[in-house]
Amino acid sequence: MTTRGMTSDLSCLVDPASIAIIGASADVNRIGGMVLDNAIRNGFEGEVFPINPSRPEVQGRKAFPRLQAVPQDVDLAVIAVPMQHVHQAIKDCSEKGVKAVVVLSSGFGETGENAGRTTEQAILEEARVHGIRMLGPNCAGLANFRSKMVASFHPAFRHLGRQDGRIALVSQSGAFGGLAHYEACQRGVAFSSIVTTGNEADVQIDEVITHMVSDPEVSVILAYVESIRDGASFAEALRMAKEARKPIVMVKVGDSEAGIRAAASHTGALAAGPSLIRGLLAQHGVNRANSIEELFSLGYAFDRSPIPASPNVLIVTASGGIGVLLSDDAAERNLVVPELSSETKAAIKKLVPNAGVNNPVDLTGQIFNDPDLTSKAINTLMGDRRFGSIVIQTGVTAALPGFSERLAKLAADLRAHAPKMPIHFVGYYDDELRRRLEAAGAACFIEPTHATRAIAALYHTGQAFDRHRTESRSYAFPGLPTLPGRPTEADGLALVSAAGIKVVPFATASGHQAAVRVAEEIGFPVALKVHSPEITHKSDVGGVRLGLTSGADVLSAAREMTEKLESSGFADSSSFIISRMVKGIGETIIGFQRDDVLGDVVMFGLGGIYAEALRDVVFRVGKIDRAEAHRMIREVKSYPLLLPQRGRPGADLEMLADAIARFSALGESLDDDITSVEVNPLLLMPDGVMALDALVTRRISG
Amino acid sequence: MTTRGMTSDLSCLVDPASIAIIGASADVNRIGGMVLDNAIRNGFEGEVFPINPSRPEVQGRKAFPRLQAVPQDVDLAVIAVPMQHVHQAIKDCSEKGVKAVVVLSSGFGETGENAGRTTEQAILEEARVHGIRMLGPNCAGLANFRSKMVASFHPAFRHLGRQDGRIALVSQSGAFGGLAHYEACQRGVAFSSIVTTGNEADVQIDEVITHMVSDPEVSVILAYVESIRDGASFAEALRMAKEARKPIVMVKVGDSEAGIRAAASHTGALAAGPSLIRGLLAQHGVNRANSIEELFSLGYAFDRSPIPASPNVLIVTASGGIGVLLSDDAAERNLVVPELSSETKAAIKKLVPNAGVNNPVDLTGQIFNDPDLTSKAINTLMGDRRFGSIVIQTGVTAALPGFSERLAKLAADLRAHAPKMPIHFVGYYDDELRRRLEAAGAACFIEPTHATRAIAALYHTGQAFDRHRTESRSYAFPGLPTLPGRPTEADGLALVSAAGIKVVPFATASGHQAAVRVAEEIGFPVALKVHSPEITHKSDVGGVRLGLTSGADVLSAAREMTEKLESSGFADSSSFIISRMVKGIGETIIGFQRDDVLGDVVMFGLGGIYAEALRDVVFRVGKIDRAEAHRMIREVKSYPLLLPQRGRPGADLEMLADAIARFSALGESLDDDITSVEVNPLLLMPDGVMALDALVTRRISG
Repeated sequence: MTTRGMTSDLSCLVDPASIAIIGASADVNRIGGMVLDNAIRNGFEGEVFPINPSRPEVQGRKAFPRLQAVPQDVDLAVIAVPMQHVHQAIKDCSEKGVKAVVVLSSGFGETGENAGRTTEQAILEEARVHGIRMLGPNCAGLANFRSKMVASFHPAFRHLGRQDGRIALVSQSGAFGGLAHYEACQRGVAFSSIVTTGNEADVQIDEVITHMVSDPEVSVILAYVESIRDGASFAEALRMAKEARKPIVMVKVGDSEAGIRAAASHTGALAAGPSLIRGLLAQHGVNRANSIEELFSLGYAFDRSPIPASPNVLIVTASGGIGVLLSDDAAERNLVVPELSSETKAAIKKLVPNAGVNNPVDLTGQIFNDPDLTSKAINTLMGDRRFGSIVIQTGVTAALPGFSERLAKLAADLRAHAPKMPIHFVGYYDDELRRRLEAAGAACFIEPTHATRAIAALYHTGQAFDRHRTESRSYAFPGLPTLPGRPTEADGLALVSAAGIKVVPFATASGHQAAVRVAEEIGFPVALKVHSPEITHKSDVGGVRLGLTSGADVLSAAREMTEKLESSGFADSSSFIISRMVKGIGETIIGFQRDDVLGDVVMFGLGGIYAEALRDVVFRVGKIDRAEAHRMIREVKSYPLLLPQRGRPGADLEMLADAIARFSALGESLDDDITSVEVNPLLLMPDGVMALDALVTRRISG
Repeated sequence: MTTRGMTSDLSCLVDPASIAIIGASADVNRIGGMVLDNAIRNGFEGEVFPINPSRPEVQGRKAFPRLQAVPQDVDLAVIAVPMQHVHQAIKDCSEKGVKAVVVLSSGFGETGENAGRTTEQAILEEARVHGIRMLGPNCAGLANFRSKMVASFHPAFRHLGRQDGRIALVSQSGAFGGLAHYEACQRGVAFSSIVTTGNEADVQIDEVITHMVSDPEVSVILAYVESIRDGASFAEALRMAKEARKPIVMVKVGDSEAGIRAAASHTGALAAGPSLIRGLLAQHGVNRANSIEELFSLGYAFDRSPIPASPNVLIVTASGGIGVLLSDDAAERNLVVPELSSETKAAIKKLVPNAGVNNPVDLTGQIFNDPDLTSKAINTLMGDRRFGSIVIQTGVTAALPGFSERLAKLAADLRAHAPKMPIHFVGYYDDELRRRLEAAGAACFIEPTHATRAIAALYHTGQAFDRHRTESRSYAFPGLPTLPGRPTEADGLALVSAAGIKVVPFATASGHQAAVRVAEEIGFPVALKVHSPEITHKSDVGGVRLGLTSGADVLSAAREMTEKLESSGFADSSSFIISRMVKGIGETIIGFQRDDVLGDVVMFGLGGIYAEALRDVVFRVGKIDRAEAHRMIREVKSYPLLLPQRGRPGADLEMLADAIARFSALGESLDDDITSVEVNPLLLMPDGVMALDALVTRRISG
């Protein structure tokens, strides 16, 4: 049963008016006690009903022996009873008309054992039959900071902190959800909601993301992801976020062997390949964070700063050394640190004779002598309107008397001057100054490189948001040839040709004399290959001869090949495929695959040894347009090899992009059990591309 | 004048018994006032003498009208007068017998103007003549925390903080030196000394590093570097640090265009190429930090943690999600996260039935129910002796009652159990707990990935320290052929051959008939190239024909070539070099260069389009052994292309390493004005290498 929940509105889960806690305990050191304590101590505005079969009162609240005894409606039930009692609890919920449950209990699918899996399936079906949405099992619940609603045992939620947050967090790891709240409090960052999804029997991460996208009070979505269960829904959630211009910052773990091992055991699901995930996130403009710190820092930046209109950064420092560091970091992240005009340089030199004025602008130790210098210099620099963003490093000056006032005023002036410009301050500021700078529309960073990294994320995410499908043309191939049970190379080439991609002149021949005739028709030089559905890796067994220049050559090569293959035990070895030898300026590989997790996938890389030894291939998920295919081409590390070289023209990248886009659209027209179509090599020419070989794989039924 | 200072002992600078401040001011908001204030307020144990021509007393201290009036010896003079008075101040110093000066004044070489450069040269010569060591000019001075000696105007040094630090910092940027101290105070990190070198007219960064290496109280050296002035000394300082097993963490900025522009204007020096620097640092096991945060985090780790004996990391978490993140990060950094034995797994399962036991070990939310669980589990895990290091993520538990005590005890027990094992805690700890954990021999991190990154740095630095020159064989080539003023390809190949590297069978021929005779002697197929010192890029002008298979082919090719070249205006176009056509399994490029900054340099990369389009080349500085050459080979991104592929053997990497090592040693035996020797391609075979072409460049004199 793979049907998802009945309603896609998660409000019942995230914004309930009343909660019941099944398994509420009087002992605040036990899970059932922690849940109740967290639910009532934070000032939730709705009702909280403890359910406890043996006590009339729990933690000072009237308790009910069973859910059905509660005299009012219950929107959400939090289930904190041992695994074997969860099924009954859900039955109680259906009787009571509860709309959603949070199952904190563990011991289900994540154990990897049959008993756990079966019970998880049973409670899921029970919930579905009664239209109940379920978070978990094996999760740490959720918290809605606006309504002060906590449905979690995690001790981090004993104190809720600020309620004005606009950063939403969804985490497959329960412990991380709690830890993130704890860290947010330490860092002065405020969340709007935290949802942990655990085993995701019903509610999966993509549905939570979609819900968060639709919440106008959410500025940015942070996601901690270990494994993707439903690739198509996940991709769709990312696409919707992009269309709504809502940034996502994601920690995606489980890329290493130990990480995959741990993620699999931790949530009971398998991870999709790292390269596939990388392609999917790139495609939808998702910001990938490699550390918790980066997750928070980028989340903070997206919450505080507008999207800059240009990659040009102005860097103003009190330390020339930090200026160089910031310039390097900005350039590394594909931002631009443009040199100043000579007029602006002269104006700065007038203010500070020893200043560095190349951008980065170094105001030197003079800022200690003149507290107004920073503002004066920046006013001058703002005359130059080319900048999309500004980084201001104040060094230790903020600690000097009078500087705080001036910095806050500078931030306000800058924001008034440039409403769409990220204003990033770098320095150690006390809480009050930080709040003032933020209120004025700036963001504050301690580590210099975080300020530039954030600007790069803002700018590149904006670029991704601005990408629209650039063409109305939608590739579709209603007339693809019907493929036999075991498709041969000739079948593959016919398929590729029908998909609108040029293939090498070729023909098949049965018998040695026929091979000679066919070769003569095609024209020399030719390649001769054995043509048998039995033999897929032809060159490994001696089934390929290249560069044959005459009929006699073809005849003797064909005879030798048959003899050799038959002596190796291959039966049908006198059928051949003959193709013209063609020279190009480079070999690439393109492939269509049906991935178990992510669905239809298109792959591109440089051919032969590059793809095999360097794994220099990139992926996209679903149908893509040519603009996206061009981005794929540029993502391959060996991409410069496709450009014009000394004495050699460049490849026809437009036709290459066209071929990749066509491949991405193959899925709809192919039999469902065709699992991959691969062209290797796809030869590049100065004017077009040509498929030299094609391999079609069908799932072996059984 | 490039001779360095007379003595290499910087004690007079770093550890003076008495300081005079020339330009001491009564106004603590002026540079000269700040210097004096910083010098006296921090409790320096030595004498401080203000020099001020117009006041008998400055900031409550007796002042002297001139240096010579000071009745006692002065070890160090801090010069804080305008640039035009610095020369006189140094004259005063020589009269007084001062041993070292710190020149804080700016306006010298860093301005890029002749006046500044000339004055800098003049004060340098004045100091040298009298044996005075000089720090600066245009620096922020220095601080010695042990003797509480501050010779800096930077406001960060108003408060010195802890005196027990073992981390030394040298910075070319003055402002960064001050900022670093300010940050250290914020982070609870303690320095032993901070030295800023500014324009480095006399004392350069390498001499400061050497001094710090020799200080037994220094555990790790942090360095902020913009440009390297004397490459040989710099490389020697790095080598000495490695031999002394003293780790260096370096921020090297100025790699981007804007960064290079800024660094050049900031210190008035040119930057060596980023790839060269990367090679030099890799060669000496220097840890490169890409952010200030990383500089501090790694410095802290080297100060606190021992070098682990194995790359195996044990990861124990309170959050499975963080465990997966840590595993990914460890694997990404070439550490190993080995799976546990089945006995150990079973023992952990007994403690926590739902634990993740694959390493990372996830103790789950059960740690909230049992405060002794972490210690019990780790005791069990320590039965397995394979681990070189341990990361313990405690989540929010440290904030729970009773956990602090237990963590501190756990740290002490672990340290007693494994004296050489990094013990890295991850979590938010208050200052007291952090101090207790550190006192027990552990290190504490907030960001999880910093704990694994630090272990990787510790382990890989230990590996670099353990590298000894693996061979006594020292390449030397006393019998290299004398090269003409404009060496030809034949001269180059003869040189390469004399250096002990196999070259392709080749010979030169004058005239068309001679070319045919030579080709017949060598054996077909051959390559025919024009042989003229005038023509270096032969193939660009039609001076190369490949794959000639007969004497007739050679004759007509030679005639056509002469005709074509002479019609293009090349005079001497009937001399040829003929070589056998040889096929290998890959083409590489090796080169020897004399770099203006770093001296003799060896380069290796994959040949042809790889080197040109992908810039996939690596460098080393100075003579290297074959073990280092092997590391170079593995550093090239396309390295996997050299390994055995389907149906193709791998390259002879031993002979390739030998060739690289030989090239690295060419410098001693070549004329000084030979600036480069490049073999492109160096053909790789399954059994050996072969130089197909060689280009020798001589500096054009003039």
